[in-house]
Amino acid sequence: MADRFASRRNIDFLMNEVFEVASLNRFPYFADHDEETFKMVLDTAQKISEEMMFPFFKDMDVNPPYWENGKVHVHKAIVPYLKEMGEGGWIQAEKPYAVGGQQLPLTIKVLASFLFGAANYSMQVYPMLTGGAANLIYQFGSQEMKDTYLEKMYSGKWQGTMALTEPDVGSSLGDLTTIAEPTDQGYYLIKGQKIFISAGNSDVVDNVVHLMIARLKDGPAGVPGISLFVVPEYRINAKGDLEYNDVQCGGIEHKLGYRGSPICQLTMGEAKDCRGWLVGQEGKGLAQMFKMMNEERINVGIGAISKISGAYYAALEYAQQRKQGRKPDQKDPATPMVELIEHADIKRMLLLQKSVMEGALALGIQLSVYQDLITVGENVEENEMLVDFLIPILKTYPSEMGILATSAAIQIHGGYGFCGDFPVEQYYRDIRIDPIHEGTTGIQGQDILGRKVSMKQGKAFELYIQEIEKTMIEAKTFAELEKQVSSLESAIGLMKDVTAELLAKKSKISNEAFLADAVLYLEFMSQIAIAWQWLKLMTVSIKSLKEPATDRDQAFYQGKIFAGRYFFDYELIKIHSLAIRLLSDDKVTVEITREYFED
Amino acid sequence: MADRFASRRNIDFLMNEVFEVASLNRFPYFADHDEETFKMVLDTAQKISEEMMFPFFKDMDVNPPYWENGKVHVHKAIVPYLKEMGEGGWIQAEKPYAVGGQQLPLTIKVLASFLFGAANYSMQVYPMLTGGAANLIYQFGSQEMKDTYLEKMYSGKWQGTMALTEPDVGSSLGDLTTIAEPTDQGYYLIKGQKIFISAGNSDVVDNVVHLMIARLKDGPAGVPGISLFVVPEYRINAKGDLEYNDVQCGGIEHKLGYRGSPICQLTMGEAKDCRGWLVGQEGKGLAQMFKMMNEERINVGIGAISKISGAYYAALEYAQQRKQGRKPDQKDPATPMVELIEHADIKRMLLLQKSVMEGALALGIQLSVYQDLITVGENVEENEMLVDFLIPILKTYPSEMGILATSAAIQIHGGYGFCGDFPVEQYYRDIRIDPIHEGTTGIQGQDILGRKVSMKQGKAFELYIQEIEKTMIEAKTFAELEKQVSSLESAIGLMKDVTAELLAKKSKISNEAFLADAVLYLEFMSQIAIAWQWLKLMTVSIKSLKEPATDRDQAFYQGKIFAGRYFFDYELIKIHSLAIRLLSDDKVTVEITREYFED
Repeated sequence: MADRFASRRNIDFLMNEVFEVASLNRFPYFADHDEETFKMVLDTAQKISEEMMFPFFKDMDVNPPYWENGKVHVHKAIVPYLKEMGEGGWIQAEKPYAVGGQQLPLTIKVLASFLFGAANYSMQVYPMLTGGAANLIYQFGSQEMKDTYLEKMYSGKWQGTMALTEPDVGSSLGDLTTIAEPTDQGYYLIKGQKIFISAGNSDVVDNVVHLMIARLKDGPAGVPGISLFVVPEYRINAKGDLEYNDVQCGGIEHKLGYRGSPICQLTMGEAKDCRGWLVGQEGKGLAQMFKMMNEERINVGIGAISKISGAYYAALEYAQQRKQGRKPDQKDPATPMVELIEHADIKRMLLLQKSVMEGALALGIQLSVYQDLITVGENVEENEMLVDFLIPILKTYPSEMGILATSAAIQIHGGYGFCGDFPVEQYYRDIRIDPIHEGTTGIQGQDILGRKVSMKQGKAFELYIQEIEKTMIEAKTFAELEKQVSSLESAIGLMKDVTAELLAKKSKISNEAFLADAVLYLEFMSQIAIAWQWLKLMTVSIKSLKEPATDRDQAFYQGKIFAGRYFFDYELIKIHSLAIRLLSDDKVTVEITREYFED
Repeated sequence: MADRFASRRNIDFLMNEVFEVASLNRFPYFADHDEETFKMVLDTAQKISEEMMFPFFKDMDVNPPYWENGKVHVHKAIVPYLKEMGEGGWIQAEKPYAVGGQQLPLTIKVLASFLFGAANYSMQVYPMLTGGAANLIYQFGSQEMKDTYLEKMYSGKWQGTMALTEPDVGSSLGDLTTIAEPTDQGYYLIKGQKIFISAGNSDVVDNVVHLMIARLKDGPAGVPGISLFVVPEYRINAKGDLEYNDVQCGGIEHKLGYRGSPICQLTMGEAKDCRGWLVGQEGKGLAQMFKMMNEERINVGIGAISKISGAYYAALEYAQQRKQGRKPDQKDPATPMVELIEHADIKRMLLLQKSVMEGALALGIQLSVYQDLITVGENVEENEMLVDFLIPILKTYPSEMGILATSAAIQIHGGYGFCGDFPVEQYYRDIRIDPIHEGTTGIQGQDILGRKVSMKQGKAFELYIQEIEKTMIEAKTFAELEKQVSSLESAIGLMKDVTAELLAKKSKISNEAFLADAVLYLEFMSQIAIAWQWLKLMTVSIKSLKEPATDRDQAFYQGKIFAGRYFFDYELIKIHSLAIRLLSDDKVTVEITREYFED
């Protein structure tokens, strides 16, 4: 089993050298923080991830939750972790002091979250989901609702969930059928079924609080009929005691990966006694849910990056230790074998993982910084546009590329990678959920091409290009980056051309034909976004190399430059093939109809 | 659970319409066969795969073999299947009548094998491995050895294995350490360890016959010291009884997939009483093993294709039945939801699977036909070159693209695809072994770039281009294929240029730098090989559409044309980005050294 799952040095590099997160304390909201307090937060996160999480990475996979008599029994290592999350104030860390938060930048929380996810993603999701559910109450709930739930949830004693999916309703949420019938008692009677509810039942908490969307009885069809409710497993009765709220867990799924966290089937209202309390306004359920969706999608993207990190460090450690074969120019079998890391093809696979992971993590931090600027009211409109624009990329790129990156980690291990004694096969399984949950890759593609590139008359797209140009201006001062600057410049030209041509065609073809290759467009855009981040990382590294640095620091910065070179030369170039397809007029995927798939 | 795992119609199409396999009966060796006998063989294969194999696809995964007291207990559904394989003469079907074979074309055996693999790959490998091991005895063994082993193996009563890998020796076989010490008794004493031996122990056969490579005691280092031995688990003693041969199974691995077949750790000679009998000549072990390797690599390629097929038909069935959302131009939530297969992005993912699978299967049949021509002595030198040249492509392309194809099958299922109730997550796990066993993707890349393109002064490469040109000449007679012919023509031009430029650089750079991107070169070559096959499939389909055809046949041929269009427009284009990288002079994967991966 590997020893490492993430690089603290890289986290510090992003935090202090690239994004200078401590400079956020120029805003009063973050005034109490500085590099030192961030260091303490991340020291603690590292300790938690190393001591309470990673040791159970495999064990939670091998001993997954089980369902018995309506209850889900989860791994007991979760208990001290949840206690730590609650007592340490992690769940509401970014919230204002006034509600018990620490006014921590989201950026720092995301970096901690990256460590937690790399150490044990299945364990991490319990408090993460609670945080997401609590956010909905925090943002839209009544004061009474906040008083009832938030403290219990922030302390980790009550689990939170997001209850959206139904047996017949996945991506098409507007079609959901769970019914909420108003009563004159201040609550609604809920009846229906939900599936795939992560942490939807658990024997280590006192209560599970479902933030659930349901359709108002006799309300309009589609999205306008949908409202958001708090539907606890146990409600508080007149005496202040917990009382069963007719939310049954009917079982859990046997899953490919991400096994430490149960995904539950829930039946509400079997005994006609399931009560839900409206959160916010009637008919605004999906809109409210989607207000929180950016944060959830950042979480998925970071979660995917963290799994790539775990697999990468396992592969790196293996490649450093395992001897196999000789270099191609050494034919003498009497010479000793060399470690795998001496082989160019192994280094290629390591660079693939490293460049995907570190580039995507930089993008995640970039988005988090924009989000922190929104929090303090700085250029809110612009920063919101940038976040909205980049979200589908951050959600999807590491999720999809993570399949190939974790696959490369297996490949480096050879046959051992296929075996349970090494962690990489688990990362490979765990990451496969990420292109699916919180909006599939197909949904993300439609989001960027169908909405984001043209929103506000293309303003977000323009702002994004300006951001890249800022990075290029700085990079241009270093002759070492001439090649990469020039590649990125032509990539931006291609991005503008392809996008303009697609948008120009839009009015002439069906919406279906316009969106048919949206997923490929998203991939195209992602390559450029990650190249942008690599140019930034390379620029900072080159600057640092001009200062006096220890040998170790020099190797670190040089490593960044190698990985950036790899990214530009092996990954960014994919845009050229993608552009050919995106500009093709052969609408084969639209034109083929079902009968041609028969036989 | 899905109902289908392969298309018989497509098998018949390849067999009768594309490759006209029955025309092999122009050669005396195959004179007894015709379309009718092939149909009977495939009818039987289909029945076996549907009735004896596919019903246990999931159950063998959920109830994998277990090791207890030195014995591996395998799933009992294997027993009737092995009996059927033995009694039906499947294991030696392609061998001459004289040794109990049926002189069946390898092509037909491969098509049957494709059905078996799609139905249940883990079950299929038992007799397949026995066949591979028996082939080595058949080819290189003494008459006494053949008499002792072949009938027992062909009948399925004795299991065969290929025992190569050791704890410290995977790809670098020349470094193996298992020792064979000569005695004056006609056998060698074997001492050492082997790992990852598929079907290396089993409680449903009377004996396991390991075809094992080992190093002669005091022999030379590296490959020249390696010989091939028969090392049975039980040897036959003077009385003709089975007697334990000191081959211990020390356990089996817990694996990501391919779980129905155990991979075993073996210890030979713990009691100093493990006897091995030399097969062929001393010092020729690896060379002999590699003579059989082409067939094993065809098996792996076909096995990967079969898993893509199983996952594809599961995804297709799901997409045809599952309703979700509406078309992009339909916003009214009161209209009914449509089946997934109505969505362009779903069709894109289905076409990805279909075009990879059917294109690779066609290539597999192409190679098998070359192999059958070798068997009858037709243009042996040319056909051997073509097989040698194309083997790394057939082995690798479906193995690597299979990861993405089975991933797409999961994606089409949404959250359900991640769950054990549907078969796709298993195909995704099962296929992950294929880029590893029988020569990793890295090894295959070095094979094609380092040996195959330049072997015999580039003659194989030239022959290959001539084969493609034959297909193009026929395709050119159809105006409908103008675009694809022109794409393939320029692809061949690019292939020649890239290859020539790489070979021209070879003498100026290190062998290491020359081979650093061999895996990308293999991917580049693979796209062109599959496009070649698609042009062939499209040509036959267009011809057939000009004849009177049933509606169903018309849909079938049209489906081929759509899939071919997809392949050219979405897959073949990847060569343009790959070419950019292959011609780049930035040798980043060579130049980066281990210290830059630290931190």
